[in-house]
Amino acid sequence: MTIRATVFGENVHEQTSQVVRDLYPNGMHSTIADALNVDPSIEASWVTLQMPEHGLSAEKLAATDVLLWWGHAAHGEVKDEVVERVAKRVWEGMGLLVLHSGHFSKIFKRLMGTPCALKWREAGERERLWVINRNHPIAAGLPEKIELDMEEMYGEPFSVPEPDETVFISWFQGGEVFRSGLCYKRGAGKIFYFRPGHEAYPTYHDENVLTVLRNAVKWAYNPGPAWTAVTDAPNVPVDKALEPIEARGLTIHAKGAPGLR
Amino acid sequence: MTIRATVFGENVHEQTSQVVRDLYPNGMHSTIADALNVDPSIEASWVTLQMPEHGLSAEKLAATDVLLWWGHAAHGEVKDEVVERVAKRVWEGMGLLVLHSGHFSKIFKRLMGTPCALKWREAGERERLWVINRNHPIAAGLPEKIELDMEEMYGEPFSVPEPDETVFISWFQGGEVFRSGLCYKRGAGKIFYFRPGHEAYPTYHDENVLTVLRNAVKWAYNPGPAWTAVTDAPNVPVDKALEPIEARGLTIHAKGAPGLR
Amino acid sequence: MTIRATVFGENVHEQTSQVVRDLYPNGMHSTIADALNVDPSIEASWVTLQMPEHGLSAEKLAATDVLLWWGHAAHGEVKDEVVERVAKRVWEGMGLLVLHSGHFSKIFKRLMGTPCALKWREAGERERLWVINRNHPIAAGLPEKIELDMEEMYGEPFSVPEPDETVFISWFQGGEVFRSGLCYKRGAGKIFYFRPGHEAYPTYHDENVLTVLRNAVKWAYNPGPAWTAVTDAPNVPVDKALEPIEARGLTIHAKGAPGLR
Amino acid sequence: MTIRATVFGENVHEQTSQVVRDLYPNGMHSTIADALNVDPSIEASWVTLQMPEHGLSAEKLAATDVLLWWGHAAHGEVKDEVVERVAKRVWEGMGLLVLHSGHFSKIFKRLMGTPCALKWREAGERERLWVINRNHPIAAGLPEKIELDMEEMYGEPFSVPEPDETVFISWFQGGEVFRSGLCYKRGAGKIFYFRPGHEAYPTYHDENVLTVLRNAVKWAYNPGPAWTAVTDAPNVPVDKALEPIEARGLTIHAKGAPGLR
Repeated sequence: MTIRATVFGENVHEQTSQVVRDLYPNGMHSTIADALNVDPSIEASWVTLQMPEHGLSAEKLAATDVLLWWGHAAHGEVKDEVVERVAKRVWEGMGLLVLHSGHFSKIFKRLMGTPCALKWREAGERERLWVINRNHPIAAGLPEKIELDMEEMYGEPFSVPEPDETVFISWFQGGEVFRSGLCYKRGAGKIFYFRPGHEAYPTYHDENVLTVLRNAVKWAYNPGPAWTAVTDAPNVPVDKALEPIEARGLTIHAKGAPGLR
Repeated sequence: MTIRATVFGENVHEQTSQVVRDLYPNGMHSTIADALNVDPSIEASWVTLQMPEHGLSAEKLAATDVLLWWGHAAHGEVKDEVVERVAKRVWEGMGLLVLHSGHFSKIFKRLMGTPCALKWREAGERERLWVINRNHPIAAGLPEKIELDMEEMYGEPFSVPEPDETVFISWFQGGEVFRSGLCYKRGAGKIFYFRPGHEAYPTYHDENVLTVLRNAVKWAYNPGPAWTAVTDAPNVPVDKALEPIEARGLTIHAKGAPGLR
Repeated sequence: MTIRATVFGENVHEQTSQVVRDLYPNGMHSTIADALNVDPSIEASWVTLQMPEHGLSAEKLAATDVLLWWGHAAHGEVKDEVVERVAKRVWEGMGLLVLHSGHFSKIFKRLMGTPCALKWREAGERERLWVINRNHPIAAGLPEKIELDMEEMYGEPFSVPEPDETVFISWFQGGEVFRSGLCYKRGAGKIFYFRPGHEAYPTYHDENVLTVLRNAVKWAYNPGPAWTAVTDAPNVPVDKALEPIEARGLTIHAKGAPGLR
Repeated sequence: MTIRATVFGENVHEQTSQVVRDLYPNGMHSTIADALNVDPSIEASWVTLQMPEHGLSAEKLAATDVLLWWGHAAHGEVKDEVVERVAKRVWEGMGLLVLHSGHFSKIFKRLMGTPCALKWREAGERERLWVINRNHPIAAGLPEKIELDMEEMYGEPFSVPEPDETVFISWFQGGEVFRSGLCYKRGAGKIFYFRPGHEAYPTYHDENVLTVLRNAVKWAYNPGPAWTAVTDAPNVPVDKALEPIEARGLTIHAKGAPGLR
């Protein structure tokens, strides 16, 4: 079975910065999608902020098993209705990979319920990601650490909920640490936050980083049918109760009325 | 030290339903606040939806250690800016107790990042809340179960994130189960969801229920100073790095510029 | 790829009780292994307590991807050295499914670090297992609940650590509830506890129960290489440090000496 | 109310190493107990390995609210029956603080159910513990990080279960990271693992480290009554069921017989 992955790329720095264009001539989204397509079990495409509905129409999302999100300069331009649409698809079972500066994306903050803030420094320093959770599917095939010669520093505290699992923790040359690979679940959807990926450095040309992305797509994939009823709040009438009961007491809800929201 | 608790009451059914008025002549919020004030370590007040800013001005929230939230008929009328203000205070360390139909309140959905949906039936059936997590501070002084002769049924699946701790699970006469006492943390703030409390029944006159509320206020109280910087994303310049580093590579951020959001 | 499952059956009640023999003429272990073999991706065999080393030699365990454990009357007869061998294989990545009265098995208590105690009643009452975690791989293909006409009751509190995920919660006719499907991880190994399975009832002939077992075998399977070094505590000498450091201060450990245990 | 803390010190290196004796003339246990007694809400005493029953008689444990454990050279000399006695007290609600090399103590491995292994290097290098979980009670009064000029390095992977909360993560000069402050719960007992404390360095003279210990004692304290029944598995007979049921089907357990273990 093929996993349909969609890479959302903000595609702003690629247009405004020669630095980024030199590193990613066809855009970061394109580089990432190409790297996913190396794996025969993944079929990746990309969309960008500039496309209608940011390329994330209901049809596109329905045909997406795992969404990857990279944004930095223009989080505020992502339409709220698209954010809600993506959130619903996650709850239904779509996987979501949030990359680097995507920590401040609307969709990540929406699903975490926290500020998702952190410390940062752009100095091209050394980052070393240690694998905390050996034999985790996301770490398959990796050495005990990933070393990136130049990366932006992100430092704790990272104001996210306590994760279900911590897969990577980063050591930075300048003295900070950061939880760099975090697993969450929201409804039927699995979410993985992965820290590296600053646009000024060749991070998405690093083989270990790309291995993580491919592994994470497979980890986040939920083969079950979409849980489309995840937002419903159905009434179970007395005469359909599994054990025989009789209605007692007074009522607020008129018979057959929908629940209040 | 005294814990300052504020009870938010929607105060709609109290105005429109004689059933509710008979049970709670001064409003559910008032009954709950009175019950909290029985404990000498708690100083409780109440506010309602109808007050300016729903009674939840920045000043009031700054003077609140733990907020209790009861709403049902008018979740949509709560102003988004007040919701954001409350969320920020939770991240800073204010405790939050979400009661019964508050599962669909804007603030709870905001902090959970999920639909918070469930099944329901209003039939005055028997609910039995089993204490799962014995010796948990929220269960202090309780018997092994709380039995409520008449309650509304809530049934699983309850679409919330996996909780940090499950304190109670409910058995319902009609055949359903529900996770009735759930602990979360968002930023520095502790959150407790507690299921019982349908307005058509005398739940907030039950001594065990009131014990839970008093215990939960004390559990949710964070005596530390407010973490007001929880939403900040400070830059750590190279010359302030803890270990000596030199800036390398190209940059996206102009020197001294604020981070992107 | 084929998942190699091994079913450990205590095989005591099958010898001493006509009731059990009538339900499971070839033993419960045999019935369970046969049901797993229905799935073409699983290759299941069984071993029993009475075999040398309980059938769980180092070779057999090395050739086992997922172990299922059913025991009740003779937990104390399981040899401690076999328990340690199984524990090591779990840490290395072998999956473990603990069934029903296996909650008191040496291996489950060993891996949980808690008493794993509960309440119980053998009265052939109705059990209804609600799916809490919809679209969880262990619940794939199930209806919203599993109904078993006759089962032994297990009641909370179940003294296990807070689980990573709760997949099922049981409602019992006599008024109790129980967390019936719990996920854990120990080292690289995934563990699933599944409540039903009393030997006096035809539980392992129920199609939904068998679906859970097949799903859980696939969920618990870790395709990665065995993490055989999981119990090692290697020294990293100063001259192999990733960043240049010089040894300072006084030392307790002689150079090159193994660590203390 | 006063919290009764007991410090278990192995007291071996203090006898055999002049280095350790110079740093802790009265033993590490004594230094730690003295530091706890600075807090008027704590009343600390100490015991050592060499005392009868290691000083941990049933009476002493019954009079202990929080136990601190430091051991390194002689884990194997701790008697198994004392380990079981301590484990039972933790399940009943006694707090447990496991310090540094105590990661390999019998009691910690017993309660975790995992190897608790890690990498290490004794080179007197710099350790910086970052506070991950701001406003956590264990971090009260601390700056954003604790810097220790000379410490032993512990590196990931640390083979422990996924913690309930991560309070500290360490950065090491030589390039490694480590989860240095981890919270767990086993039964009614809270457990905190705290990494620093190598006997060759003056770690237990650092004010921030001592603040952590005092905070952690208060965090781990469970004021509830001991849950002495935590290991019991009581039968609930049919005629005591909360809902009327009739016994059906066949039985394995003779009426009134105790459960099987």
